[in-house]
Amino acid sequence: MKRIVNPVEFLKRKRDGGRHSSSELSAWIGAYMDGSVADYQMSAWLMACFQRGLDDDETVGLTEAMLHSGKVLALRSVRRPKIDKHSTGGVGDKISICLAPLVASCGVAVPMISGRGLGHTGGTLDKLEAIPGFRVDLDARRFERTVKQVGVSMIGQTAELAPADRRIYGLRDVTATVECIPLIVASILSKKLAEGIDGLVLDVKAGRGAFMKDRKSARALAQALVRVGRRAGKSVVALVTDMSAPIGRSIGNALETREAIEILRNEGPADTRELTLALGVEMLLLAGAEKTRTRARARLEAALASGAALECFRRMVSAQGGDLRVVDDVTRLPRAKARLAVTAKQSGYITEIEPYELGLAAVALGAGRTRADQRVDPAAGIELAVQVGDEIEAGAPLAFVHAKSRAVAAAELERVRASFAIGKKRRQTAPRVLETIV
Amino acid sequence: MKRIVNPVEFLKRKRDGGRHSSSELSAWIGAYMDGSVADYQMSAWLMACFQRGLDDDETVGLTEAMLHSGKVLALRSVRRPKIDKHSTGGVGDKISICLAPLVASCGVAVPMISGRGLGHTGGTLDKLEAIPGFRVDLDARRFERTVKQVGVSMIGQTAELAPADRRIYGLRDVTATVECIPLIVASILSKKLAEGIDGLVLDVKAGRGAFMKDRKSARALAQALVRVGRRAGKSVVALVTDMSAPIGRSIGNALETREAIEILRNEGPADTRELTLALGVEMLLLAGAEKTRTRARARLEAALASGAALECFRRMVSAQGGDLRVVDDVTRLPRAKARLAVTAKQSGYITEIEPYELGLAAVALGAGRTRADQRVDPAAGIELAVQVGDEIEAGAPLAFVHAKSRAVAAAELERVRASFAIGKKRRQTAPRVLETIV
Repeated sequence: MKRIVNPVEFLKRKRDGGRHSSSELSAWIGAYMDGSVADYQMSAWLMACFQRGLDDDETVGLTEAMLHSGKVLALRSVRRPKIDKHSTGGVGDKISICLAPLVASCGVAVPMISGRGLGHTGGTLDKLEAIPGFRVDLDARRFERTVKQVGVSMIGQTAELAPADRRIYGLRDVTATVECIPLIVASILSKKLAEGIDGLVLDVKAGRGAFMKDRKSARALAQALVRVGRRAGKSVVALVTDMSAPIGRSIGNALETREAIEILRNEGPADTRELTLALGVEMLLLAGAEKTRTRARARLEAALASGAALECFRRMVSAQGGDLRVVDDVTRLPRAKARLAVTAKQSGYITEIEPYELGLAAVALGAGRTRADQRVDPAAGIELAVQVGDEIEAGAPLAFVHAKSRAVAAAELERVRASFAIGKKRRQTAPRVLETIV
Repeated sequence: MKRIVNPVEFLKRKRDGGRHSSSELSAWIGAYMDGSVADYQMSAWLMACFQRGLDDDETVGLTEAMLHSGKVLALRSVRRPKIDKHSTGGVGDKISICLAPLVASCGVAVPMISGRGLGHTGGTLDKLEAIPGFRVDLDARRFERTVKQVGVSMIGQTAELAPADRRIYGLRDVTATVECIPLIVASILSKKLAEGIDGLVLDVKAGRGAFMKDRKSARALAQALVRVGRRAGKSVVALVTDMSAPIGRSIGNALETREAIEILRNEGPADTRELTLALGVEMLLLAGAEKTRTRARARLEAALASGAALECFRRMVSAQGGDLRVVDDVTRLPRAKARLAVTAKQSGYITEIEPYELGLAAVALGAGRTRADQRVDPAAGIELAVQVGDEIEAGAPLAFVHAKSRAVAAAELERVRASFAIGKKRRQTAPRVLETIV
């Protein structure tokens, strides 16, 4: 039975600090989608939510209302437990690309629907599309078949899944109502629950390169995601992870895909590997594939060492139309015409690498977007020659800037150089995983 | 110099409890009017203002930004001091119609721009239009000429005056952001200041028939209006007046115009007269026409007794195209086909007359609007046979309901009857003027 909503009375309730019932929220979102609630009413409500908050019951109600604004995948033909991972976004975050096939190679189904880069952070879809021919626009049937046959598929959000979230997110972006935990939680969970998953591991990033700049607010978001996700009937765990420096040694689409393939080859930077394993452990535990963290980790390490994870990635690339030769020869990924070194002006130890500025520099080089309708340059980006804690000699390279021309690359050299802090004392590198919210 | 506004940054400031400068507010309103700020951004800001407030400097800034969104009358040819009155709206509030010519007859110019009824309250324009031929749509030149020659003119708001207020008010009405003192203050003052006045007397109503239901919130609004109006450079005084019962003995357009004419003839209900005199006293003082309340009151009483006030009204009706015969013979005002008595079921004293329900009943009879595009029936309304404190016999009339048909009238009889409370003890009538905010 459809419930009628009086927009002004509904708005007054939240305006004055009241609570909405699930059926009211469902009616509100329904009325927004059918046009009887206008954008200007939704935005006033979003601002009232920002000021007055939503409790967990309301956040569950909003999540489910947005979830049911569109199609909810069932993936009934997939018999294995279905677990996904979501990251709140960082700089150099290519983890999904190696994590999803790795976990799938351990017998867990990973139906992953990802996004594109916007702002200073990259997007998994853009990174995957650096593989020539790779298609992220599979329809629901082909997505399900790929998950069933390969164990993993990675696609983009379709217009059918949680359309209310897409419209509301667009409105939040232009009405200063993004930074509101219950609205963030409902947005993330409504999209992820539409995938038909059983469980979800969240990577909530904290630090200058993340949306949540400090650990306390990241923890609050992680806790809210776990609480609300569970109330919505899913197994949910969150890791709060460090985003005070870029992940691994690459920022930019082809560069990051290359690094992810290196991880799948049992190589690559230690921090990228560590984060991949930590998230993979939680996914295996949620799936019930292993009972302890030790055993889960050993199983993941074995899948990397044996080539099983790489093989799973290969099958996914094949199923999604990508050029398989890239998997064995990463030099076949798009390469930039210009590659300029950024050198250290002094000797010492790398004490900081500022992720936000490097993220913006990568966007300026062509790796990202400043508007949603821009195309990205798959080859553009920044290759880090050092990580925090490394020793450096004056004149040695800090990074290499990749762009379509020397002029475009040169324009970012100073910003990239300024993103590296060099000190006299070696700084202890912090672990990527800061805490686990179960 | 036009200042550029970043809508999201502007929204964040108020969202987080910050302050806007006058130049920012001016840029914001300018951007809204030129379309670069959307309705959904304005409504989010209005909700943020509702939650976070605006201080007096911001309210002055918003008032002036809205004022300057359109034409500001100068009325340079009018040499006398120009004073207006504004009421926050009540039931049976016909005061403007007798007050404006009365004050004008005492040598003060009254350039009055009024509104129409919406909701349970009536509007001065609808009441004036009950006079056959009376035109409220004079252009700015004819308005100025009438004020100069007659001393008073009463017209409707034109699209040229404070257009930002009109758009923003429309948005507030549908986004639950009406009941916010700084927004109310800026809305009232921007419209009134556009009239080119020197001073303003405010009638802030408190009680069940008013927008402000209790005296405390009415006082807060009155104080804010006086503070902000003065900062905007005008002489401003406010009276907080009682709206726990309808004013006088009539609700409805022709009925109220008739009562106003009775006041101008030195007749009519005592409370209507009292309120008219109290507001007139403040207007004469603001204009400097008299130095003391006692002298001001005596002058107003003399103008009523001598017929000078009625003569001034006659000249205004003539200047605005109305049928002058109405002034001398109020039976020429539109009369309803059906007039049904509502009788008392018991004997006793009238202890309460519920203004809100009577206001709604008058609207249902055809005297008001439930949508802005409706036409009103000038003859419809409620004629009160008693006032609070009167003694009544069972079977005697409490009121007469006027409508275009017996069926329409009959449908409201019980609601009207239920609006009168009859008790065993005589209730002391309260004065209309509760306090003066100077």
